[in-house]
Amino acid sequence: MHITRYTDYSLRILIYLAINKQQLTTINDIAVSYNISKNHLMKIVQQLNQQGYIIATRGKNGGIRLNHPTNEINIGELVRQVEDKNKLVECFGEDNQCVITPSCQLKNIFAQAQESFFKTLDSYTLQDLLGQEQQNTLTDLLAIKVL
Amino acid sequence: MHITRYTDYSLRILIYLAINKQQLTTINDIAVSYNISKNHLMKIVQQLNQQGYIIATRGKNGGIRLNHPTNEINIGELVRQVEDKNKLVECFGEDNQCVITPSCQLKNIFAQAQESFFKTLDSYTLQDLLGQEQQNTLTDLLAIKVL
Repeated sequence: MHITRYTDYSLRILIYLAINKQQLTTINDIAVSYNISKNHLMKIVQQLNQQGYIIATRGKNGGIRLNHPTNEINIGELVRQVEDKNKLVECFGEDNQCVITPSCQLKNIFAQAQESFFKTLDSYTLQDLLGQEQQNTLTDLLAIKVL
Repeated sequence: MHITRYTDYSLRILIYLAINKQQLTTINDIAVSYNISKNHLMKIVQQLNQQGYIIATRGKNGGIRLNHPTNEINIGELVRQVEDKNKLVECFGEDNQCVITPSCQLKNIFAQAQESFFKTLDSYTLQDLLGQEQQNTLTDLLAIKVL
């Protein structure tokens, strides 16, 4: 069982921006701190921007920042938006070829289980990931320079 | 978000055996009914046998059958056994390279969410997938000849 790297990286970007809230962040900053390819992050940042999670400022001194306070960014809501719910198991998708689908109860049961997964994440906001103690350590781990 | 094809096929095999409980089943029967490669199923059947879910009888007229009544085969228990819990997200695995792991709360939150997923499945047994109405339709869909 796994969630996509896309979702993982979306969350890492938001954590970075939450920690680096005093200044604009470049995609390069995030790529260097997490040792992730910049190209990989560009598409995700673009989507987070379209979804209203972040604001991007263009230009030489441009960069990105969170669009909402951390306690208003719900983890469940984000993961629901980013993850494809139709990928859990073959019968969830359009290319399903399982012959017993018309009479199989597993699809409903798996849908319930997936919803339980998301519901647990609904209890948390980005703020919950950032206690004061964590913030200082995260700042160090991400090698963010405090202004 | 998705679970492995391995888990999906494990469940399909058990459903087949539950429907075809009057007689021994060959791997070929299952492969033909679901239109899945026989080789793909062999390893899964072997594991289900090792885990005690099924009994295999060797020989010319051999085959496999369920080792327990359908109401004693718990779906959550099976999926927990078959799915790799350490694959949910990079930080769950041994090859994790995420720099913020020592101070990141996401791992705990995702572990809770994964547990909620399994807990929902814990409420169901193989029997719950096989109401009388479903059984007749499943028999037809799997093209099982009733003795």
